[in-house]
Amino acid sequence: MEQDQHIDNLVQELRRGVIVLAILSQLQEEQYGYSAMKQLADQGLNIDQGTLYPLLRRLESQDLLESKWRLEDSRPRRYYVISPHGRQVLHSLQQEWSQIVATMDTLLSEQERK
Amino acid sequence: MEQDQHIDNLVQELRRGVIVLAILSQLQEEQYGYSAMKQLADQGLNIDQGTLYPLLRRLESQDLLESKWRLEDSRPRRYYVISPHGRQVLHSLQQEWSQIVATMDTLLSEQERK
Repeated sequence: MEQDQHIDNLVQELRRGVIVLAILSQLQEEQYGYSAMKQLADQGLNIDQGTLYPLLRRLESQDLLESKWRLEDSRPRRYYVISPHGRQVLHSLQQEWSQIVATMDTLLSEQERK
Repeated sequence: MEQDQHIDNLVQELRRGVIVLAILSQLQEEQYGYSAMKQLADQGLNIDQGTLYPLLRRLESQDLLESKWRLEDSRPRRYYVISPHGRQVLHSLQQEWSQIVATMDTLLSEQERK
């Protein structure tokens, strides 16, 4: 039980690292929180609302996202879209990501040969 | 300046997620801390000693690694190697990693098309 917890924590840590990159990549077109969450889930990245919504607000406060309220179906929804600064950060993160994937490819394929 | 700090933090977060996976994959053969650090650095994953050494001890306390002291060149060195439980966890993390890479491939290639 405790050991499963370790695995869960490690898996969470693995996912946490990519969440910002995933969100920035998806918010090149504006979306509200729930639609962004659904789109990521469709691609296999499940993020619960309790994680995503505060993260969207944090990314906005860091000037990586911009948001505006829209009235839709008689209810207000906050739409988020990547900011110009966010695009630069996305570009840096993508380069870093490519390098990490290449490194891990090497490390994990070496391991398979053993 | 502050914006560079954001990028640095995000890059660190991206790397942090893969460090345990990288370490477990490399410790299928026993190594002491410094040699593991050097091997990872050779593959492009730089981890400083202040991060790596406590992490090795944490992974041992979680029964993912085993260690023993050896006397070498008249100085004691603590050698680490993956434990049987660590191998199971490594297997789970590798599967998760493959899935994350596949998801990100889809998300990032969609984005390029836009």
